[in-house]
Amino acid sequence: MDLKALIRDIPDFPKPGIMFRDITTLLRDSQGLTHVIDRLTHQCHSLDHKPDYIVGIESRGFIFAPALAYQLGAGFIPVRKKGKLPAQVHSIEYDLEYGTDTLEVHQDAVQEGARVMIVDDVIATGGTAKATSELLTRIGCDVVSFGFVVELRGLNGRSLLPDVPMVTLVEYD
Amino acid sequence: MDLKALIRDIPDFPKPGIMFRDITTLLRDSQGLTHVIDRLTHQCHSLDHKPDYIVGIESRGFIFAPALAYQLGAGFIPVRKKGKLPAQVHSIEYDLEYGTDTLEVHQDAVQEGARVMIVDDVIATGGTAKATSELLTRIGCDVVSFGFVVELRGLNGRSLLPDVPMVTLVEYD
Repeated sequence: MDLKALIRDIPDFPKPGIMFRDITTLLRDSQGLTHVIDRLTHQCHSLDHKPDYIVGIESRGFIFAPALAYQLGAGFIPVRKKGKLPAQVHSIEYDLEYGTDTLEVHQDAVQEGARVMIVDDVIATGGTAKATSELLTRIGCDVVSFGFVVELRGLNGRSLLPDVPMVTLVEYD
Repeated sequence: MDLKALIRDIPDFPKPGIMFRDITTLLRDSQGLTHVIDRLTHQCHSLDHKPDYIVGIESRGFIFAPALAYQLGAGFIPVRKKGKLPAQVHSIEYDLEYGTDTLEVHQDAVQEGARVMIVDDVIATGGTAKATSELLTRIGCDVVSFGFVVELRGLNGRSLLPDVPMVTLVEYD
């Protein structure tokens, strides 16, 4: 299945000069959604290290991470924006193009040494995935892989991340 | 499986006097996550009207709606907070306890007459689910059912919603 044919290109979103890759048109297509989850699952089965947990980054990582965790028999851990998680958290602040953002995870989310896979919809500059990886390392996780539906290769986000396997389904230059 | 035993009670979140039902402890448990998705799926199979689409409400509805859509062979539609969706949207503003909030859906998300099930993690006052239902009706959807992992019965959110089947897994008085 040609997933790219189901992804819609929207120019100048969220700001002029940016070509936004809109996956909502892929997700509303039941065959497209099935194909995305099945292919992510299939690629994960071929990795050496089975994750104990799939970590989803708020909000669009939540679309894929729990479904993938279900398929793999793993648990799901949310990494959320500031102030959303109810128990004690660790936080990480990281740079955006303009300003900063903060991500949080529950301090007791996992046991020490747990193997985790970090999942989001898109990898662009890699800043969010890198911050998430650092945050999880801080609570004692072993980050064993990353998964993204879309990779924007021109931004080379991959270079910021630890040298572990990365699953991607659709690439743009 | 006793799902309630995996849900953590956190007093005074997000503000004094509120007992927050924290499902992150349920979701990190691989058997708990499996059980939630399987039970939602099973209950949906017994409904008269199979949905064409599962609608997830940002952010925590995204945790369950795509996995359920995958299980049912349906498509997934996100309803998002203001300014997040890239194409033309319909918006609805609705009252919160203090102030208002806005939800949006793509105008072209579904074809006229599509049958949709609306999914979120929790139904409390029902205000968010009601607004979502009105928004989807406005783009021509037939809302055929609702699904929530947790129902806070004391707040009687159910009374605000259209008289269609509602799937819930865990109830608190």
